[in-house]
Amino acid sequence: MTELRTTDVVVIGAGVSGLTAARRLAQAGQSVVVIEAGDRVGGRTMNLDVADGVITEGGGQWVGPGQDRILAMLDELRLDTFKTHVDGKSIYHRRGRSKRYDGTVPPLSPLALIDFAQVQLRLERMARTVPLDAPWTARRARTWDATTFGHWLDANAMTEEAREMFTAAFSVTNAESLHSTSLLVQLARIRGAGGIDHTVNITDGAQESRVVGGTVRIAERLAEDLGDAVVVDSPVVEVAQDADGVSVRSVRVDVRADRVIVAMSPADAARIRVTPDLPTRRSMLQRRWSIGAESKLFAVYDRPFWREQGLSGQAVTDLPVAKYVVDNSPPDGSVGILLTFLGTAGAGCGEHWPDAILDDPAARRAAFLGDLTVLFGAQAANPTGYLEKDWAHEPWISGCVGSRAPGSLTQYTDADRRPVGRIHWAGTETATINQGYLDGAVRAAERAVQEVLNCGSVAGEPSDHADRSGRRSVTAP
Amino acid sequence: MTELRTTDVVVIGAGVSGLTAARRLAQAGQSVVVIEAGDRVGGRTMNLDVADGVITEGGGQWVGPGQDRILAMLDELRLDTFKTHVDGKSIYHRRGRSKRYDGTVPPLSPLALIDFAQVQLRLERMARTVPLDAPWTARRARTWDATTFGHWLDANAMTEEAREMFTAAFSVTNAESLHSTSLLVQLARIRGAGGIDHTVNITDGAQESRVVGGTVRIAERLAEDLGDAVVVDSPVVEVAQDADGVSVRSVRVDVRADRVIVAMSPADAARIRVTPDLPTRRSMLQRRWSIGAESKLFAVYDRPFWREQGLSGQAVTDLPVAKYVVDNSPPDGSVGILLTFLGTAGAGCGEHWPDAILDDPAARRAAFLGDLTVLFGAQAANPTGYLEKDWAHEPWISGCVGSRAPGSLTQYTDADRRPVGRIHWAGTETATINQGYLDGAVRAAERAVQEVLNCGSVAGEPSDHADRSGRRSVTAP
Repeated sequence: MTELRTTDVVVIGAGVSGLTAARRLAQAGQSVVVIEAGDRVGGRTMNLDVADGVITEGGGQWVGPGQDRILAMLDELRLDTFKTHVDGKSIYHRRGRSKRYDGTVPPLSPLALIDFAQVQLRLERMARTVPLDAPWTARRARTWDATTFGHWLDANAMTEEAREMFTAAFSVTNAESLHSTSLLVQLARIRGAGGIDHTVNITDGAQESRVVGGTVRIAERLAEDLGDAVVVDSPVVEVAQDADGVSVRSVRVDVRADRVIVAMSPADAARIRVTPDLPTRRSMLQRRWSIGAESKLFAVYDRPFWREQGLSGQAVTDLPVAKYVVDNSPPDGSVGILLTFLGTAGAGCGEHWPDAILDDPAARRAAFLGDLTVLFGAQAANPTGYLEKDWAHEPWISGCVGSRAPGSLTQYTDADRRPVGRIHWAGTETATINQGYLDGAVRAAERAVQEVLNCGSVAGEPSDHADRSGRRSVTAP
Repeated sequence: MTELRTTDVVVIGAGVSGLTAARRLAQAGQSVVVIEAGDRVGGRTMNLDVADGVITEGGGQWVGPGQDRILAMLDELRLDTFKTHVDGKSIYHRRGRSKRYDGTVPPLSPLALIDFAQVQLRLERMARTVPLDAPWTARRARTWDATTFGHWLDANAMTEEAREMFTAAFSVTNAESLHSTSLLVQLARIRGAGGIDHTVNITDGAQESRVVGGTVRIAERLAEDLGDAVVVDSPVVEVAQDADGVSVRSVRVDVRADRVIVAMSPADAARIRVTPDLPTRRSMLQRRWSIGAESKLFAVYDRPFWREQGLSGQAVTDLPVAKYVVDNSPPDGSVGILLTFLGTAGAGCGEHWPDAILDDPAARRAAFLGDLTVLFGAQAANPTGYLEKDWAHEPWISGCVGSRAPGSLTQYTDADRRPVGRIHWAGTETATINQGYLDGAVRAAERAVQEVLNCGSVAGEPSDHADRSGRRSVTAP
């Protein structure tokens, strides 16, 4: 029997964004029900068990300065952070040679350094012309949205080395090839994250800190406080709006509410049937959302042995698999963990991975450990453990970050977050600041909650949404 | 109770491709079951009722010379075709002025005609370097796949008028903005269709003929012959492969078979859970498939009154809604029908439609009839009927044609049609010749059937590349 409930607001999706929305609504005196398709909370955050009492993060794992809303939430939940390990020299490996370096800037050739700087300057100058709330209104929006970041880099970076650096840095944060992602989308993200240095760096950057116990603790703590309001394992099938409210039908619970907040990526929202039909712009945005996915690969050692050699564990390389390596050991260093990201979109620069790397776990592991051995010596060849988390095959989550393919931002504009009658949209994809980050997930939730509270639970629709009731259909003469 | 069946091959999807595959398998002595999610056969072909005994086509409607496989199927099914009405003068309307013209070439300004010709020449020259079976191996594949057709046109067409002509022609056949679609994808399609003239033209082109009774008769006749083998209203939930065969679980029937042919767009195939996991390349291709959608708008009159004025009913315009108009009356001219296509992706050139046009049926109808009145006079203002078919809100079909966003072809290469164990892929999206057309649907089916009959080894498409006068017909509405 499907359970029936009545509430003020239904939230669909128990990731960080959905659970934040539910908490803020509850704090404002609203009753809530959170419905989650999967069998756990956390969405794109999760823990992997490394050893007794030791975890590592299988999904989003970093927070940094300027990410004020997620940092405030961590405070509120009394969750501690610790610094990503950076002590020691990092490795820059290219064309078969390793160089060690201090600080954040790899020892590129002098010409490549100058080239990198001029490209960065131009990108940040372009990004400053992109209005965060409406990137499609930038003067050159149409041109920038009609091509890819990779295409622009090919034409504007003069050295291959600088191009490789940008590719390495942005492929990881985007989980897709730069030759797929809209230049305009990237400029908006650069602006929304406060510049390229902030995006790329650990210290003073977006990768500065981790959460003790793993970032999934955020969702778990939020869910604990919400208690029975959270229903997992219950895919939503349909959302039906009418003049008086909204009915949400899911596998385990049917809920009648005043409003609904959908806290999923737009790609995943497309799974839900909405009646009456969504506006065309929203429907097409969902259907054309270009999800990105990558895997995290972890090699586990009995201790972080590289630290004994004066190494930080960080590496930037042109090796087959381990393009970017970072020390992901637990805060006490009780075991050593090296992490890399395997973008499913391809090995940068438009080349694609061999199928063996993508689909043969043994071959992938061997290639990864081979790369680590090149960087950190023979000790790296024999880990005590090896873990992966693949985001390209999750049943209810289409991928990691994803974005809008070329043309989408100028065509579908604000359909990612414009309310549709009683339906409001959260999820980090709908944030204008720190989109794609945990901070964006919290910001989007808090914005959606404000919309709901401003509308009043049972009040009429805000006038600017009134035209949304128009739907198209086949009309016979 | 879910019914249980055992068969040689399961086909998922009862569109033209799936039903063609089932017929060819049955002809080869294989037993088949066809499972369809929706409540009817035909997929992206369907009829709309205009009046007693009069229909018009809501989906793909045209076939043309050189589309040998669909023409052979029409012969086999004893379905008749008739010529799209072209007698009389057509209208070229731009900047408030209408000009009448004969033949296929609108009276552009002399400079725009020269410009159009040079762009066409360059595109066709580029297209000739793109291998049909492997566009990603073209020498400039990486560059061409990293940008959009619209971006290239902006840079290479010198006159706005020529740019507008390309946009009008290609937006309709692609059902998406040229500023979204990969240049490499378009070059491959130009090559696969035998040139731009064939794509654009009615006479001697892809829009030359229609099917008496509507193109949905193809699927209906195929289904009649297959009888109980076709199960509708039964969405497939899971496909599970093992060493001995494949199990297909759907709402109304569970089937055990040796092999399965999935005859759906890759976007829709993503709805099905596959175990073990699909290869990453295939999974990501499905998740990143960039579906296109547009609507067909029909104004119905008691007779084709424009013919009395010496007009063909065809128009190419820069009006708000009716960018391209064509006479879509039934073969006997018993009523008059004017058809236009409303691309949801935007009004060409990166601009987007006002929401009122997209989502307010009354406003859209008024705008369309206003445009027709400009073109064909006051009589056009008062149709006896008005119909629409919208492909942006179908529950089981994500859109019309769609394509691969920039970067997809070079990254995921042949994942659209490479068999995965016992799973084979059909659907017009997997055709290399006349992709996106009814002819591609048949070709893809026949290629998939060859694979199955060869016990899984990869087959080429039935080849009649020899006749490069090959023409194509739009399966998109």
